[in-house]
Amino acid sequence: MTSASARVPARQQSIRASNLALAYRLVLDAPTPLSRAALAAATGMTRATAGALADALLAAGLVQEVAPPPASTAGRPATGLVPASAGWVGLGLEVNVDHLAACVVDLTGAVRRQVTVDGDQRGREPGPVLADLAALAHRVADDLAAPDAPETGPGDALRIAQVAVAVPGLVRSDGGRVLRAPNLDWQDVDVVEELTPRLPEAPARPTVGNEADYAALAELDADRELRDFLYVSGEIGVGAGVVFDRRPFTGSRGWAGEIGHVTVEPGGDACRCGARGCLETVAGLDALRSPDPDASERAGSGLGRAIAAAVNLYDLDTVVLGGAYAQRPDLEELVRAALAEHVVSASWAPVAVRRSRLGGTAAAIGAAASVVHRIHADPAAWEARD
Amino acid sequence: MTSASARVPARQQSIRASNLALAYRLVLDAPTPLSRAALAAATGMTRATAGALADALLAAGLVQEVAPPPASTAGRPATGLVPASAGWVGLGLEVNVDHLAACVVDLTGAVRRQVTVDGDQRGREPGPVLADLAALAHRVADDLAAPDAPETGPGDALRIAQVAVAVPGLVRSDGGRVLRAPNLDWQDVDVVEELTPRLPEAPARPTVGNEADYAALAELDADRELRDFLYVSGEIGVGAGVVFDRRPFTGSRGWAGEIGHVTVEPGGDACRCGARGCLETVAGLDALRSPDPDASERAGSGLGRAIAAAVNLYDLDTVVLGGAYAQRPDLEELVRAALAEHVVSASWAPVAVRRSRLGGTAAAIGAAASVVHRIHADPAAWEARD
Repeated sequence: MTSASARVPARQQSIRASNLALAYRLVLDAPTPLSRAALAAATGMTRATAGALADALLAAGLVQEVAPPPASTAGRPATGLVPASAGWVGLGLEVNVDHLAACVVDLTGAVRRQVTVDGDQRGREPGPVLADLAALAHRVADDLAAPDAPETGPGDALRIAQVAVAVPGLVRSDGGRVLRAPNLDWQDVDVVEELTPRLPEAPARPTVGNEADYAALAELDADRELRDFLYVSGEIGVGAGVVFDRRPFTGSRGWAGEIGHVTVEPGGDACRCGARGCLETVAGLDALRSPDPDASERAGSGLGRAIAAAVNLYDLDTVVLGGAYAQRPDLEELVRAALAEHVVSASWAPVAVRRSRLGGTAAAIGAAASVVHRIHADPAAWEARD
Repeated sequence: MTSASARVPARQQSIRASNLALAYRLVLDAPTPLSRAALAAATGMTRATAGALADALLAAGLVQEVAPPPASTAGRPATGLVPASAGWVGLGLEVNVDHLAACVVDLTGAVRRQVTVDGDQRGREPGPVLADLAALAHRVADDLAAPDAPETGPGDALRIAQVAVAVPGLVRSDGGRVLRAPNLDWQDVDVVEELTPRLPEAPARPTVGNEADYAALAELDADRELRDFLYVSGEIGVGAGVVFDRRPFTGSRGWAGEIGHVTVEPGGDACRCGARGCLETVAGLDALRSPDPDASERAGSGLGRAIAAAVNLYDLDTVVLGGAYAQRPDLEELVRAALAEHVVSASWAPVAVRRSRLGGTAAAIGAAASVVHRIHADPAAWEARD
């Protein structure tokens, strides 16, 4: 993918790329700045080879060198490598039914900017919605470039590596095209095609994903203890992201986690998807906001049955309630009770249920973080980019 | 695992084991008998190395040599390697609510023996049930050893490599212990501990798995076109096996696919698991046999909603109806209609639904086949075994 590497034979290039990724992973996972000597020791490479990889990561702007800690042993103390806090960042954008959002995450995983604009998007055509989203992206990008931006020092420019867009619907697995977002009334919208010419410049083409999948990724980054879990996102629509072994599980075509259309009240209310009794009809935000006195109980009980179905089918030990559910301890309790009743393994292996600390901003954070994860996984693709 | 290999350094041993597995995989996948020259060409090994691996597979009884096809080119025609049809076999056993079964599968994947004994196991203690199962295993083993067994020629002895036991319940992921089988009323039964001393001799310790997971494996072996699918097993209980990319998906602790306890009628009939309205209460065999005139429609519609939940949550494109459902075209139609209504992606990506050709015998076949798969994956572990 880089001009310099085009002259290197494929197999040799892939060994170097894989070694570079390994070296970067060690820097990213190290609890303290990693010296070149420690990098050589950890990889089993010679100091010269490890040093060359460190130089390549530095040259690509993917790591930076920090001053050594106060010397505790004799000899000249070594500088250490840490992920770069300037340079490449991911820009996450989110279209949702009642808000648009943007978020910037840097290579250390830190959130650098975050903007949410409330506003009902229902009844609007995709074109104007995406134009507003692109305008939001430019606002954030201009802010990154501004020399007096509060978080950046001189020379500390943040550059957008790629834009990732979170949408509340089903996305084609090759990215780009939203097949169906019932709550936005979108059918077959090519988000990448529409957005690309309007977005701030970035070396990699934009990508599109499901909002709950991105939110689950943000949750994963926020909690290093999580391994296997179901993340349930409560918005106007209800979606879920599934994670096994700290990796997203997206199903056959990328559409896993459509918990919002699990039937929880057979023959119940009509859903925007065309069916009746879907979880969304009892536990989406519209239903939760209804003045009906038993709305919360009905929502919690339906949500609990749908999550119990997911736990019985997937075998997961942890559920994270996100989006609007993150603010609802009452729903958390009802879900816990439903799981105790309906999960067949619950009596000896109770399911842990907790609310997300990220709340409604998780999808945009996760979208931005997905870009950072891609850079972390394949640093060689980011050499010689500007 | 073999005595000879104990003297070889670990890393070198694992490279040889991996090469042996690669060579075996090539023999297994070859459409016609594989010559040593073709094995060398396919692996990129020298003919001497490939020949040594072929000799090792022959010596372990894992492959056999067959006469060359009529010569089509000049030169001495080569003999070819095929998986051995004698020697090691897997013995699959099944405990189910209304039958016990046994099945023998050889290294070519062929079913060599199959016995089912009908009989309601409810209300019996695990001990006597497992004693009956062990007796069935001995009947089959004695039959294998008999010199006049119809399918075996002289010297063609079939030897049990391992016993795998299918149970309709949740099994501990380290094998052996059944945590809960609600329809048998089993709680925490150590099947391996109970069965091992009573079973026919085999070099490897028995293993235990969920019946629907084993049945899904049998389905996978029977249809090379399947990639991602949900196998639903309709017995007294209802279970499911999930397969992605032709590999079983078993969840966090091995308990995935508990579709029988997905709620399809909230507040409905009491289930043996303790909850109400589980799929089993409307689509298990007891409900299907009820004289109620709308029993079939209720079963098909509940089954359809539960399968739609699984498809929405997992994103799968194919559903196989097995067990008693395999004989029920009426249920197949009701399921298809429910999926068209309740699966959010169904309008542009319809879900394929079909009935299993294996029917009620799939679990025992799959259990036996699981042993064969293990031998196929790690032939080095079967050298010097007898």
